[in-house]
Amino acid sequence: MTFTTNLADALTAYVSNSTFSSLFILTDENVYKNCFTATSLQKLVDTKNVFILPQGENTKNIDTCIFIWNELNRLGADRKSLIINLGGGMITDLGGFIASTYKRGIRFINIPTSMLAMIDASVGGKNGINLGHYKNQIGTITQPGEVFVYPLFLETLDRRNYLSGFAEALKHGFLEGRELLETAYTFAQMEINKPFIAFLKRNIEVKERIVAKDPLEKGDRKALNLGHTVGHAIEALSHEKNTPLLHGEAVAWGLAAELYISHLTYNFDEATAKNFETFVQNYFVKPDLAYTDIDKLMDYMQQDKKNEHGKINFTLLNDIGNFKTDCVVEKEIIIESIKKIIALCQQ
Amino acid sequence: MTFTTNLADALTAYVSNSTFSSLFILTDENVYKNCFTATSLQKLVDTKNVFILPQGENTKNIDTCIFIWNELNRLGADRKSLIINLGGGMITDLGGFIASTYKRGIRFINIPTSMLAMIDASVGGKNGINLGHYKNQIGTITQPGEVFVYPLFLETLDRRNYLSGFAEALKHGFLEGRELLETAYTFAQMEINKPFIAFLKRNIEVKERIVAKDPLEKGDRKALNLGHTVGHAIEALSHEKNTPLLHGEAVAWGLAAELYISHLTYNFDEATAKNFETFVQNYFVKPDLAYTDIDKLMDYMQQDKKNEHGKINFTLLNDIGNFKTDCVVEKEIIIESIKKIIALCQQ
Repeated sequence: MTFTTNLADALTAYVSNSTFSSLFILTDENVYKNCFTATSLQKLVDTKNVFILPQGENTKNIDTCIFIWNELNRLGADRKSLIINLGGGMITDLGGFIASTYKRGIRFINIPTSMLAMIDASVGGKNGINLGHYKNQIGTITQPGEVFVYPLFLETLDRRNYLSGFAEALKHGFLEGRELLETAYTFAQMEINKPFIAFLKRNIEVKERIVAKDPLEKGDRKALNLGHTVGHAIEALSHEKNTPLLHGEAVAWGLAAELYISHLTYNFDEATAKNFETFVQNYFVKPDLAYTDIDKLMDYMQQDKKNEHGKINFTLLNDIGNFKTDCVVEKEIIIESIKKIIALCQQ
Repeated sequence: MTFTTNLADALTAYVSNSTFSSLFILTDENVYKNCFTATSLQKLVDTKNVFILPQGENTKNIDTCIFIWNELNRLGADRKSLIINLGGGMITDLGGFIASTYKRGIRFINIPTSMLAMIDASVGGKNGINLGHYKNQIGTITQPGEVFVYPLFLETLDRRNYLSGFAEALKHGFLEGRELLETAYTFAQMEINKPFIAFLKRNIEVKERIVAKDPLEKGDRKALNLGHTVGHAIEALSHEKNTPLLHGEAVAWGLAAELYISHLTYNFDEATAKNFETFVQNYFVKPDLAYTDIDKLMDYMQQDKKNEHGKINFTLLNDIGNFKTDCVVEKEIIIESIKKIIALCQQ
């Protein structure tokens, strides 16, 4: 990972490596408008090799992959070509999958432009696309050649997108310990400032450290799934209902549900869970959830990638900094946690 | 790799491993009819989990993947599920890709039923699907959990399919040395017999040894591409023209072309090349090729996965047993080799 305040120079040095036969950029409309100039890549990459996709999670599907694979083919991309993914998690997930499967895998780098992509999506090699409404059902685990983090991109984010990234930072806090968690709460309530950069770096290190120990998610990498079992179901439903939440927003609500499950099953501290609930209520967009949605949410959870042997699989907490993977939870308790979330949303 | 004369017992022992949450079979109509019973898998796998696809290279596309991914999802396949690929190279290529990308990768095993799949396609972890008429453009390199070779399946093959497998065996001979090459010539002209089994094993060992040294094809694994640059172009064109050749047939003709290129560029022995040409003329179906097809074949070669920096990339021979990878050849010489093939086909 390269943390840089001079992105143009860092990228120019990287892509000028003569082992790349050609360069391609994958980005979305919004990022292209706000971030492309800062990369200076317009000087190095042929305009026809820049793919500007519609923004939003709906683009992250197999039809987009087929389109890009064909374009790469038409434009003569070969095994020595480099794909540069410039964008949020949608772009880094999609571009990583396209690169890892084109001609059985070509090199790619990530330039995350959102807080969420910087501290989570662009790091760790997980990529993927959605299959219908099911999140990231198709993908590979393939490490990017490099990740360039340029914190100034955070200033291009609106408040909602910026805050969305804090869901993963708060998750890191719950996994790491009280001090990082408190820092996350604090920064979420402030504008970007100097100390924030150190906090950003620390979050990337947390993710990198966990991934390095278990890149293929056979064991402790599952810690990072905290909040994501319920979170992915909420996210998928929000898309199905055409009231899309951002990934981080869905994870924040999922985290609230799973802290409650942690409380019910592993005696996780109730006040800590409640404190988080209040924070999520105050800072994150509320999903459009009704009690009649419970079956649908359970269906989505039943399809979760993390499940094994037909059981819905959770990562839960005994305490801050003390997680437990591969937890199977009674259906009644899951439903209770969803009811809790629905009630919070309706307050 | 497990070489077995009791496939049912070997498979039963393997799949009875309790870490598999569910079993799925991918096969084609023809293989289902001729080979399924011998596996005894009908006793272990739910009928609804058996996917019987139309046979032929046309099935190896992204639409089939989307269909199977959705079916796996609908039937509750999870990360602990096992996909059993039962068939020739089309099935093992397709099934390996589906498994390596479903939920970011689930386990799979190959049970090759053709000679070509036994000694080549099912070994080494390369998988893939075609993108339009372009061969294996999309895929990954992911090793199967196990490969079960059951030589009795060879008796289900008609003469054309059986012989097709010898193209890769002859290629192994050219890479390994004169003795293996002569054995390949000899067996290709005989019925299956006892000593043939040893020859089959030896071919698998050749492939396994080359792959083990360089699984990701950064260097010497490229030796195995001998015959495949021209071969893939001939194969793709035959499909475009609706006069499909079998993969091995296209490779045999590609090998003839590339031995001729080897002669022209690296002084490969002319008599050895001519001897092979005569063999291919006598034993392999001739492609429907005309001089007007040369541009199209060059176009296909231009899209070959092995190319780098826009140059068509060959593996060539100085001598039997002495290969050279990453050879860039003048366009005129490639065209001359194609003209040679066309002339041989028209004799």
